[in-house]
Amino acid sequence: MAQTIVETLLENPLFRTYSFYCSVLVLKMMSMSVLTGLTRVKNKAFANPEDAKNFNVKVKVNEDVERVRRAHLNDLENIPLFFLISFIYVLTNPSVFLATNLFRAYTIARIVHTIVYAVVVIPQPARGFSFGVGLFITGYMAVQNVLYFLL
Amino acid sequence: MAQTIVETLLENPLFRTYSFYCSVLVLKMMSMSVLTGLTRVKNKAFANPEDAKNFNVKVKVNEDVERVRRAHLNDLENIPLFFLISFIYVLTNPSVFLATNLFRAYTIARIVHTIVYAVVVIPQPARGFSFGVGLFITGYMAVQNVLYFLL
Amino acid sequence: MAQTIVETLLENPLFRTYSFYCSVLVLKMMSMSVLTGLTRVKNKAFANPEDAKNFNVKVKVNEDVERVRRAHLNDLENIPLFFLISFIYVLTNPSVFLATNLFRAYTIARIVHTIVYAVVVIPQPARGFSFGVGLFITGYMAVQNVLYFLL
Repeated sequence: MAQTIVETLLENPLFRTYSFYCSVLVLKMMSMSVLTGLTRVKNKAFANPEDAKNFNVKVKVNEDVERVRRAHLNDLENIPLFFLISFIYVLTNPSVFLATNLFRAYTIARIVHTIVYAVVVIPQPARGFSFGVGLFITGYMAVQNVLYFLL
Repeated sequence: MAQTIVETLLENPLFRTYSFYCSVLVLKMMSMSVLTGLTRVKNKAFANPEDAKNFNVKVKVNEDVERVRRAHLNDLENIPLFFLISFIYVLTNPSVFLATNLFRAYTIARIVHTIVYAVVVIPQPARGFSFGVGLFITGYMAVQNVLYFLL
Repeated sequence: MAQTIVETLLENPLFRTYSFYCSVLVLKMMSMSVLTGLTRVKNKAFANPEDAKNFNVKVKVNEDVERVRRAHLNDLENIPLFFLISFIYVLTNPSVFLATNLFRAYTIARIVHTIVYAVVVIPQPARGFSFGVGLFITGYMAVQNVLYFLL
């Protein structure tokens, strides 16, 4: 029955928490594509000749666009690792309280990272700190996973 | 027994559909690496000095190579999000008919996106449309997931 | 009960192997972020004006930094696909011996790839070979998955 696995997974409250925060992070990442598009149009800075042509401009590089793209790339370098590591972490039967707060803190840290990087540029260490929080949380769970499955 | 989880997951027809389309999308993404390599050799445009040396050329940037790389990066920004979001979506017990067609439409849209972006360049809105279909499907499922696990 | 799914998954020895190697690969990928940061500081080559300012330099591009970034991007293009494809591969009930060795070989190949690309640059075909091993393993499992779920 199709129900079995669904019911089993959903009985685990951490899977529900995991699914919720991951879905929020996906929406956050998708918003970067939209933000890049809007910043390209605003600055008439396109990467493809066929796009530039529609606005009667030439292909050019714009610093605002590049900043959004760097924030997006930083997401790509980090958030998919969190998706996998936190899924495996749930399987190691961690404290629900701890895991929930790690997922919550990670999600908030990455949203803050995007804002201070690409929306309202704030001097360091705002960006470094929010990046570090995310890196630390992923690293902590990854090490816990390695130890759990090594032993 | 090793069988249990395997059997349980495979009993769910949507998991089978999910696994099939995701594997197709992975092969599609892998083909981008191969296409980049072929385009680099064809245009003798390499990013690493040690590669350029083998062809007695200097490191250079080539627009055809960059186009393939942009298409590839666009895949990286979008398809892994689909992998996760559609997995979680399966857990929300959606209509099998709807979910199957969303997975199918997404896969087709991304294959079309690659073709019109990097293989046979076709004027807009072909690329924008196929990108938009993919974005809309992922966004729809992500919002459904957030609502499902929030409530 | 929260136990059910956890116990079920952990009863499968391949899931344990999968979880272990994936966690190692995540730590390897995270080390690329750290390596990029260290290489940036060492060469005082930053992408953001606010970072360069802290070191009283201007934004600049450095070949050593770019090399680490290319290695990192190559990881992003390949390893997340392995995460998904090997998860699905476990569901196809493969030989435990074969799957374990594929996971192990993949992990070693990717670590070697990073070392010969970004740490101690070694002439080709070291990099091409380690890349090829990874691509072949992912491709093999992807094709197996497609055939398994197609039929």
